[in-house]
Amino acid sequence: MCGIVGIIGENNVQYDLSIALQTIQHRGQDSCGIATKKKKKFYLEKDDGMVKDVFTEKKLKEFKGNMGIGHVRYPTMGSAGKVNAQPFFANQPGIFMAHNGNIINYHKLRKKLLEKSLYLTSNCDIEPVLYILSEELLKIKKKNFKTNDLILALKKTYKRVRGAFTIVGNIYLDGEEAMFACRDPYGIRPGVWGKKDGNYMVSSESVGLEILGYELKGDIPNGELMVFKKNKPPKFYEIDKKEHTPCIFEYIYFARPDSKISNYTPYNIRLELGKKLAKKLRKKGIDIDVVIPVPDTARPAATAIADELEIPAREGFIKNRYSARTFIMKSQEDREFEMRLKHNIIEDEFKNKKVLIVDDSIVRGTTTKYIVKLVKNASPKELHIGIFSPPVNYPCYYGIDISRKNELIARKFQKYYKKGLKELENKMAEYTDADTLTYLDTDDLKNITEYKTCSACFDGKYPLKLKKEEIENIEKDRGENKHGD
Amino acid sequence: MCGIVGIIGENNVQYDLSIALQTIQHRGQDSCGIATKKKKKFYLEKDDGMVKDVFTEKKLKEFKGNMGIGHVRYPTMGSAGKVNAQPFFANQPGIFMAHNGNIINYHKLRKKLLEKSLYLTSNCDIEPVLYILSEELLKIKKKNFKTNDLILALKKTYKRVRGAFTIVGNIYLDGEEAMFACRDPYGIRPGVWGKKDGNYMVSSESVGLEILGYELKGDIPNGELMVFKKNKPPKFYEIDKKEHTPCIFEYIYFARPDSKISNYTPYNIRLELGKKLAKKLRKKGIDIDVVIPVPDTARPAATAIADELEIPAREGFIKNRYSARTFIMKSQEDREFEMRLKHNIIEDEFKNKKVLIVDDSIVRGTTTKYIVKLVKNASPKELHIGIFSPPVNYPCYYGIDISRKNELIARKFQKYYKKGLKELENKMAEYTDADTLTYLDTDDLKNITEYKTCSACFDGKYPLKLKKEEIENIEKDRGENKHGD
Amino acid sequence: MCGIVGIIGENNVQYDLSIALQTIQHRGQDSCGIATKKKKKFYLEKDDGMVKDVFTEKKLKEFKGNMGIGHVRYPTMGSAGKVNAQPFFANQPGIFMAHNGNIINYHKLRKKLLEKSLYLTSNCDIEPVLYILSEELLKIKKKNFKTNDLILALKKTYKRVRGAFTIVGNIYLDGEEAMFACRDPYGIRPGVWGKKDGNYMVSSESVGLEILGYELKGDIPNGELMVFKKNKPPKFYEIDKKEHTPCIFEYIYFARPDSKISNYTPYNIRLELGKKLAKKLRKKGIDIDVVIPVPDTARPAATAIADELEIPAREGFIKNRYSARTFIMKSQEDREFEMRLKHNIIEDEFKNKKVLIVDDSIVRGTTTKYIVKLVKNASPKELHIGIFSPPVNYPCYYGIDISRKNELIARKFQKYYKKGLKELENKMAEYTDADTLTYLDTDDLKNITEYKTCSACFDGKYPLKLKKEEIENIEKDRGENKHGD
Amino acid sequence: MCGIVGIIGENNVQYDLSIALQTIQHRGQDSCGIATKKKKKFYLEKDDGMVKDVFTEKKLKEFKGNMGIGHVRYPTMGSAGKVNAQPFFANQPGIFMAHNGNIINYHKLRKKLLEKSLYLTSNCDIEPVLYILSEELLKIKKKNFKTNDLILALKKTYKRVRGAFTIVGNIYLDGEEAMFACRDPYGIRPGVWGKKDGNYMVSSESVGLEILGYELKGDIPNGELMVFKKNKPPKFYEIDKKEHTPCIFEYIYFARPDSKISNYTPYNIRLELGKKLAKKLRKKGIDIDVVIPVPDTARPAATAIADELEIPAREGFIKNRYSARTFIMKSQEDREFEMRLKHNIIEDEFKNKKVLIVDDSIVRGTTTKYIVKLVKNASPKELHIGIFSPPVNYPCYYGIDISRKNELIARKFQKYYKKGLKELENKMAEYTDADTLTYLDTDDLKNITEYKTCSACFDGKYPLKLKKEEIENIEKDRGENKHGD
Repeated sequence: MCGIVGIIGENNVQYDLSIALQTIQHRGQDSCGIATKKKKKFYLEKDDGMVKDVFTEKKLKEFKGNMGIGHVRYPTMGSAGKVNAQPFFANQPGIFMAHNGNIINYHKLRKKLLEKSLYLTSNCDIEPVLYILSEELLKIKKKNFKTNDLILALKKTYKRVRGAFTIVGNIYLDGEEAMFACRDPYGIRPGVWGKKDGNYMVSSESVGLEILGYELKGDIPNGELMVFKKNKPPKFYEIDKKEHTPCIFEYIYFARPDSKISNYTPYNIRLELGKKLAKKLRKKGIDIDVVIPVPDTARPAATAIADELEIPAREGFIKNRYSARTFIMKSQEDREFEMRLKHNIIEDEFKNKKVLIVDDSIVRGTTTKYIVKLVKNASPKELHIGIFSPPVNYPCYYGIDISRKNELIARKFQKYYKKGLKELENKMAEYTDADTLTYLDTDDLKNITEYKTCSACFDGKYPLKLKKEEIENIEKDRGENKHGD
Repeated sequence: MCGIVGIIGENNVQYDLSIALQTIQHRGQDSCGIATKKKKKFYLEKDDGMVKDVFTEKKLKEFKGNMGIGHVRYPTMGSAGKVNAQPFFANQPGIFMAHNGNIINYHKLRKKLLEKSLYLTSNCDIEPVLYILSEELLKIKKKNFKTNDLILALKKTYKRVRGAFTIVGNIYLDGEEAMFACRDPYGIRPGVWGKKDGNYMVSSESVGLEILGYELKGDIPNGELMVFKKNKPPKFYEIDKKEHTPCIFEYIYFARPDSKISNYTPYNIRLELGKKLAKKLRKKGIDIDVVIPVPDTARPAATAIADELEIPAREGFIKNRYSARTFIMKSQEDREFEMRLKHNIIEDEFKNKKVLIVDDSIVRGTTTKYIVKLVKNASPKELHIGIFSPPVNYPCYYGIDISRKNELIARKFQKYYKKGLKELENKMAEYTDADTLTYLDTDDLKNITEYKTCSACFDGKYPLKLKKEEIENIEKDRGENKHGD
Repeated sequence: MCGIVGIIGENNVQYDLSIALQTIQHRGQDSCGIATKKKKKFYLEKDDGMVKDVFTEKKLKEFKGNMGIGHVRYPTMGSAGKVNAQPFFANQPGIFMAHNGNIINYHKLRKKLLEKSLYLTSNCDIEPVLYILSEELLKIKKKNFKTNDLILALKKTYKRVRGAFTIVGNIYLDGEEAMFACRDPYGIRPGVWGKKDGNYMVSSESVGLEILGYELKGDIPNGELMVFKKNKPPKFYEIDKKEHTPCIFEYIYFARPDSKISNYTPYNIRLELGKKLAKKLRKKGIDIDVVIPVPDTARPAATAIADELEIPAREGFIKNRYSARTFIMKSQEDREFEMRLKHNIIEDEFKNKKVLIVDDSIVRGTTTKYIVKLVKNASPKELHIGIFSPPVNYPCYYGIDISRKNELIARKFQKYYKKGLKELENKMAEYTDADTLTYLDTDDLKNITEYKTCSACFDGKYPLKLKKEEIENIEKDRGENKHGD
Repeated sequence: MCGIVGIIGENNVQYDLSIALQTIQHRGQDSCGIATKKKKKFYLEKDDGMVKDVFTEKKLKEFKGNMGIGHVRYPTMGSAGKVNAQPFFANQPGIFMAHNGNIINYHKLRKKLLEKSLYLTSNCDIEPVLYILSEELLKIKKKNFKTNDLILALKKTYKRVRGAFTIVGNIYLDGEEAMFACRDPYGIRPGVWGKKDGNYMVSSESVGLEILGYELKGDIPNGELMVFKKNKPPKFYEIDKKEHTPCIFEYIYFARPDSKISNYTPYNIRLELGKKLAKKLRKKGIDIDVVIPVPDTARPAATAIADELEIPAREGFIKNRYSARTFIMKSQEDREFEMRLKHNIIEDEFKNKKVLIVDDSIVRGTTTKYIVKLVKNASPKELHIGIFSPPVNYPCYYGIDISRKNELIARKFQKYYKKGLKELENKMAEYTDADTLTYLDTDDLKNITEYKTCSACFDGKYPLKLKKEEIENIEKDRGENKHGD
């Protein structure tokens, strides 16, 4: 996942960068970094932890610059920790770079570079991309880079680097300071840009732009390079363009509901999917008194269901607003206790009612199972689960931390799924101890936007094909560097 | 406000205390503390900051004890900072104590103690109470305290100490370890107790009990002392009992919705008040397309209004899930910017619609004004404000941080209010730039529970009368130690 | 050991207190504390670590006061750690207090207080003294204390408290701010006072006074109370006076050489003892080419020996100026390695020479043994050890951390010692692998000052007699709370 | 100045590196760093502060490696701070490097690299050297480097890089892990190597080797490259060799007295210079009762003078063993106060005596002036100053922090010096308020070792000639980044 930000034009750009990063903190809480440039001088700081803790006032004062980029990291490739924090810097020819997404042929790139005695200092997957771009640029010339040189070098880089990514970087171009941004050929990972006076900003999500007063101008187009210079209109250059296929899971679960991603907000998509789920529930003839969302993602879908089915929606789950910590964790039981600390229920909303609990998706199944157990303490009359997405049946290799194949609960019950979605739903209801469980059909995702989306985690149709060894390397890496749930 | 916890019976009680404190972290984020006792040895640590940051695993390991109390502090009396953190300890006769609430004759107590050469080490208002109780106990005898001694000493203490409070403490009694808890004569501030096997727990709110597996047994009765000993039924002793009059504002705004306070949950009260607001809106003939709560407090009321008016409720505001920080704050403009960082809107839910925004209360008016300004960017057709409480027209001297009289917006428009609530509503609509603004009537709060509530902030009927000098001292203290908004 | 400082008269007295504490940092590096008072407000901070690390500029800014006391702690009673750091505060009647020395009937005092339900918050031995003094004062009256009240209370306190100590404290007396200092009946532990304009300062050693521009006026007289008020001459009151018998070990080893203690500097005493050792060596007919001190304590003695024997003194040992740390410590071997890090030798000064190594004393014998081993690498022709004190044959119960009886090497070889010092010297030479080893005779300590000294560690003549249970309690405490070497 | 360490062969080499760095902590306290390598993985950490504070047990545990290098930094080029801490890493072809010394054409190198779009991330002068070496290596080939490639690349590097330095680095060579070390053509800065079993160690000074049990084998020869591989004899290759001319100031002041530098210890050199000073004092007919060294550097010289003149040497100055800090510093007066905190005197050793105070050198003159002022408080009969080096009359551009030309006191009194050393001595005696002041003659430094030494700071004879612009750049850099006194 991860989140990126870049700004060009403002003085002391580090302050706005730190604010923008805090608006996309949900995209990564493991580590963060900011890099700025003032004249020929670079400033870089990255560390473990949240933006507000790492970038204190004292730290921000050490920076200077009217151009800079920032990053929040959620490790999907490489382990956690400071050493893997972004941005990365290539001192020759002087490029700062950060990305969100995943480079699927990372292990091969690493190996190839090592053959040229180029050692990586991290196992973050943007590092080889940065060095490859630098290498391609230096092959063309040693200094005085023009935009055309960057285009050419980037085209060669895209030939060597395979992945789903949005990149933001800084380089001195055509005799002036420039910010560049580019997106993978399919535009799988999100990326937008905006304008305020003569300044420009790019980010993974649009929220930071709005809050800082930037006018959202749109997506960084898939497969294109954008070059931004202060007080000039940005330029667009095609590098390697395929069909625009953004990730559906950003809408369903990952992005902030108020972000605009390729012209749609996750909020609206969730409303829409909620409506579809409601129709399916009606068709299945499930009788419901009240709909209760698992906070925070499922709220919009729940309101849509309430409208559609003309039943009340209620806030039955209370989330602890403060991140809590417990030190007596061990085994499954304690994992449950940690969830217990996060969620509490309003018993009255469940007792003796036919309740529909709505959640966004089911990956491993443990959370759903726990939620049912928690709610049963309140003695509902019936307990139905509604999931406003299809079963997660394939891993994501493009930057969403959807665990390895053999950890997906839908995979475990594959024999049921093969007989039909209904069979899987029954099995899942049994497994989670709910009365019924309803997924969306994969077809329900169609036409949800005006363009195609990447729904590979649901239907296995990967827009960017993966080689067997690439899959193996990624799954191995995930096995070694296990992240969260 | 503040929050308290006490547990007797468990080994290494510090772990559960730290968990319980995290469930009531919303009651105070300024500082926190834990004190435990094992045999004759006391352990105490208090510091600035949140529970999860102060009580690290390393710190918790330093504690021992099968009896302990904890505290989270939100300063309403005395300044912020470590020196004022609770619990406090009286080394003779060996009592740990913490409270939530406010001692209204604090300044007089302080002065009286100083006349006896007793210097306070803080300006926290529980400190003199602790020393007065100790003094009264030592007047009776020097050692081998019996429950009767505590009752007698507490009765004398209640005569000298005036306030709204729930106290938890530890003392060696009748030859064994004991935990005691007591509540002010009116029971203004909340306090509950529960049981797990032979262990007992008290807390400001019930959530911690539920999560730790304690059975909630009920309120600490107003004006009574409870004494808890491991493996024995707790005992109740009347100290000074008036009519039970708990604070209505805990239900409306302050407590967690899932807590049980004197048998009612804030969640249900908010539903109820939402319904009343809906009826009033209908009577006023206000036409609404959609109801949108200001998160998180207003959600239950909004769902109740949606049901009652048969219109959809929507999540139009998106709150930043991560506490954010900005370092370029200055003046009013930056205060707005800070709010901007906290809230974002889903424009589609407002555009061209007749929107009702629901919030819990209006104190200074700045937040409401800002919310309207933010929403107007999305061009709603009409913008109505619904507040599910009456105008806050009087300061709270009982522990809720409702600012001094002259900062209350309702006070500023007092001449309108005197003409009738309607006049004030019109003025407030004009002031906040909304189309209409609707409060509840003070009568709407009646019979909302089966007992009387303290609604002094709305109607000025203070159950515990204050002397002029007490009011002056409290307002002066607040002026010097300004806390938050 | 420990060190104390008190200043009255200066504004923002915390700055000078922190400087003064740094001049006596050698008296304790475990923890430190400063307490100040301004009008009726007290300020107190104490923590683990060195003065320069605990009292940062930020921390010092939080203090106010024109009266204050400070402390550096080396635990000889009670364990290490923040909880035992001084000064301590009695909130009634408002006294800050700190001491250097040892209270020998601490365990009894603790027990007696507990019988009155007075719990100690630490196991530091000044805490009960403070409460006893407070109790005695409050027995007299509750407020408006006069100097006479303090005298009376202190006399009663001296009857209850047995030990070797110098105390500094703060109390409001005769209607004004006062600093008081008092010393045990024998004046075993050091304490001096000085004057600058109308301000007064007391300290364990005189160095801080000199550096801060105070004129050293002399000792705090043994068995007396001194009361200091700004701009008034200090007053002296006899409390309980025995023969002045200061600790000889302060001169030999512990105090800074440049301090003036009861009119003598350790520097001069060490010169004198060096001369005596030289005479003894000459009498023993030991032939020496060069004298080499173990730094830093032995340097003055070595120069005196060089003069007396007309041989050169040389710096053969080089001490690492920076405190070093190593993390692979285990067992005896690593202990040696740690010493190795601290000391290095100049081989040329030892090779083929008849070397006399001079050190101050031998407690456990391990350091001397190690020093010989280290030096032997440089192949000296002969290796002689000269110790400018007699064998340490008895533990110190008065505040010097001379380990428990059974850890003293002289005790281990008691059967030799009983036959005569010469036999012990031979045994010690054999044990440490030196050619010869020479101690001073206990008689050599006589008449070294114009007054008697406490040489109990050498001759077992304890000026303040100890009861058997007191000895047992102290040795037990030391066994549990082992401090350094 | 700075200090370097490198070790190859041991497992978990970080522990010994941290110990070795602590033995040369006197060479730099500003920042420090350690880099290790295990298989293809690099580990690097550098930070502000002392070794014992930066490299905690926790931090050391994060490292792995059987090859590593370390550095302590005292900034003589570039500003202080983490960003300039060493070692530096070139990811292609994978080299870690650190140095002590100064690169005199740093500004030109930086400019040249920038012309090739190579941006430096610091203003530490080793960084361009590392990139130049990397560039030269990659010009030869891209991988599978042989020793011959390194020799060739280093020869080219020496052509481009001018300075006084000892470098230690790590590179993969001839198919195995290697450590390399090289020294500037004149061997101005120190550097030694040693052996323990099949492991090798290099360092700025020999003390670390001795303590870790390495046998000191000798200097890294000037102008040569050494290549170390585990279990193989190290190899020597001439790169660019001029006459061996080590820095005399290391012996006089900077290095630890117990280090062996080019076969001499500073201790012995100081003895020798002390003897010469004694002879000169005798010739001048100065009558002295006692000689007192300014600790710690002047002690050996003082003992030599005492022997030569047959007068006693005494420890008249007592240094605070603990680094102290004061926060009321401002202006000259406070600077003096800081010195006061560091030094105290034993008055008896000065009073009514004809005293010779011995110190190593005079740079700015402020310390000497202060010392005289301090001593005069003790009323010596006569006060003579003896400096066991000639006047510092020229800045050092080779890595000793001898301030810019116009800050040297000898320069200020140049007109006197031009008339003869005697005239300068008289002027300096007057200036410092001493009765007489005696320097060594520059001729006294001749033949002090069997090889030539760099005495440029005394005689202006710079072995490595500097261009005017190089001098200007260095002085400018020093002016901007002022370091201590």
